[in-house]
Amino acid sequence: MPELRKDPVVGRWMIIATERAKRPTDFEVGHSQLEEPGSCPFCQGREMETSPEIFALREPHSKPNSAGWDVRVVSNVSPILRIEGDIQRRAKGMYDVMHGLGAHEVIIETPEHIQNMAELDKAQIARVLTAYAQRLNDLDRDPRFKYVLIFKNHGLAAGGGNILHTRSQLIAMAVNPKLIKEELLGAQRYFEYRERCIFCDMVQQELETGERIVVETDTMVGFCPYASPFPFEMWVLPKRHSPDFGKITETEKWDMATVLKASLSKLSQALQNPPYNYVLHTAPFRREKMGYWKTIEEDFHWHLEIMPRLTKVAGFEWGSGVYINPTPPEEAAAYLRKLETSDGAVKARPDHG
Amino acid sequence: MPELRKDPVVGRWMIIATERAKRPTDFEVGHSQLEEPGSCPFCQGREMETSPEIFALREPHSKPNSAGWDVRVVSNVSPILRIEGDIQRRAKGMYDVMHGLGAHEVIIETPEHIQNMAELDKAQIARVLTAYAQRLNDLDRDPRFKYVLIFKNHGLAAGGGNILHTRSQLIAMAVNPKLIKEELLGAQRYFEYRERCIFCDMVQQELETGERIVVETDTMVGFCPYASPFPFEMWVLPKRHSPDFGKITETEKWDMATVLKASLSKLSQALQNPPYNYVLHTAPFRREKMGYWKTIEEDFHWHLEIMPRLTKVAGFEWGSGVYINPTPPEEAAAYLRKLETSDGAVKARPDHG
Repeated sequence: MPELRKDPVVGRWMIIATERAKRPTDFEVGHSQLEEPGSCPFCQGREMETSPEIFALREPHSKPNSAGWDVRVVSNVSPILRIEGDIQRRAKGMYDVMHGLGAHEVIIETPEHIQNMAELDKAQIARVLTAYAQRLNDLDRDPRFKYVLIFKNHGLAAGGGNILHTRSQLIAMAVNPKLIKEELLGAQRYFEYRERCIFCDMVQQELETGERIVVETDTMVGFCPYASPFPFEMWVLPKRHSPDFGKITETEKWDMATVLKASLSKLSQALQNPPYNYVLHTAPFRREKMGYWKTIEEDFHWHLEIMPRLTKVAGFEWGSGVYINPTPPEEAAAYLRKLETSDGAVKARPDHG
Repeated sequence: MPELRKDPVVGRWMIIATERAKRPTDFEVGHSQLEEPGSCPFCQGREMETSPEIFALREPHSKPNSAGWDVRVVSNVSPILRIEGDIQRRAKGMYDVMHGLGAHEVIIETPEHIQNMAELDKAQIARVLTAYAQRLNDLDRDPRFKYVLIFKNHGLAAGGGNILHTRSQLIAMAVNPKLIKEELLGAQRYFEYRERCIFCDMVQQELETGERIVVETDTMVGFCPYASPFPFEMWVLPKRHSPDFGKITETEKWDMATVLKASLSKLSQALQNPPYNYVLHTAPFRREKMGYWKTIEEDFHWHLEIMPRLTKVAGFEWGSGVYINPTPPEEAAAYLRKLETSDGAVKARPDHG
């Protein structure tokens, strides 16, 4: 069983693999071996090569673990956390440790061997979002879990591994991760002072100035944040205040598919299919027990952060938490805004130049 | 002038380059061009190719910006922060911004074209540490600066750039970086409860169990931390409680050179000269004005964190702050401990196996 160990100074949890521990010679510095053509375990027709299906959007009457699906969710074959048991939190001298309890799933975004989510059509991206919401709402029913992080690693430099088929991942945890807590506390601090959601205020200011807006629909907006740590970073948010991605409406889901496709297509076009990560920030489960997070309904707002991986994170960033972004977000947004995408559904705002 | 912009939610400062902003085509994904042999600006005899010398350890009667030095400190030719002016902190709607005031220096660790600090002899490493302490104490006299971060990027994957000559960097800032604040606050919280320094307790527990110790001298210790985010991560600490690296004693400096040389040599041998970063964590300047940090003298303890860059930081880590370490620190330490180094001065502790 992997272990979760807590950094005693700053309080971050780390996952320490205890099985199949990597020895020095296991770290390859050279190029990874990419998959052989035709051997992708995530393609339709090879369903038996993955772990059993947890959820799928399928044709009526098609059987689990067979062809006939649009989106398919399976357990990761090498999960970094394990679903069995309980957390058994305990001391080890001055340190804290618990069992590496959790869930680690793969959301296979298409039955075809497509490598970039930007190439999926909008209806297919909307189905992927349906799968996200369904898994979030299902895992919410397991009382052992406090948080579910949904994310994507695209390209080798972004941790995408040697399988190219477009997919997302989900990790459910028995603790709230430190960065999520910080975000919740930051939003709460602002709310206490202003009595408004900080993300709603940000959307309003961004729409007013327009200089960092990239794409917009009636219900959703995509922009380059004012203090982006990464060049060409984008956030996608609903205009309506809503803490839980699991409660996304059908209209918002369609609009989010529109904005996400346009954003990823523009990044791909501007930066020649760059490696990127994205992370869905949604409110934690079981917050009725969270005491000082009683205001989450009012002060937190779900959003997706898209981070192209163009710069190296080095000693200064690791030591300070301060990132150096060589492209002002206004310039990144102006560049991305001008790019044509095949999709006419994204409103052009004449006032944004 | 670069800008410091504050993330409105979590409160981190980001450095946004406003001059020579990178456009999409400026991001190369391919291999960087390494320097031509014989064209290294950091080698002895090419002193006029760097910015003017700020500090050097030199032969008596040798002139600044000429040959005859052992360690040489110059301004970075492309500084990420600028030394001129003041911070002019101000609002931009709901956002915070200030001028990118600071200092950015390069510490050239040897006049010879040596590429890995592990290959310097101990006396030379001790001279580098003298330069660190001298620059820290000198910058402390500039009332505009609150913190100085000293760090090293070794190897391309660790942000080492296309010049190979071994060197460290220093960035002085007009704000305390978020990660430093978190460390100070974590140490303070522990001190309030225990009335002891958390780092002193950690050193004591590590020396007692011995399972994560790699090298040790009378005054210094190098070990793999219990909750290391990175495989083969090592921390080097003085056994004596001391918040300020700038107040290191001559004995500690010599012992630190011993432990640092042994640590870097072992990592280099185990992992085939891996890319790595190291960061010196020392107490901030001007803490008499810091109100709730009044206990820093008692609760903070300087240390050096060495992070080999063997794993990819991907969506899960960016979204959660939780890192996945595939090598338990006990196993990393056992492996590193066993490696022979040429240096007989490092005590073998028979009780550590």
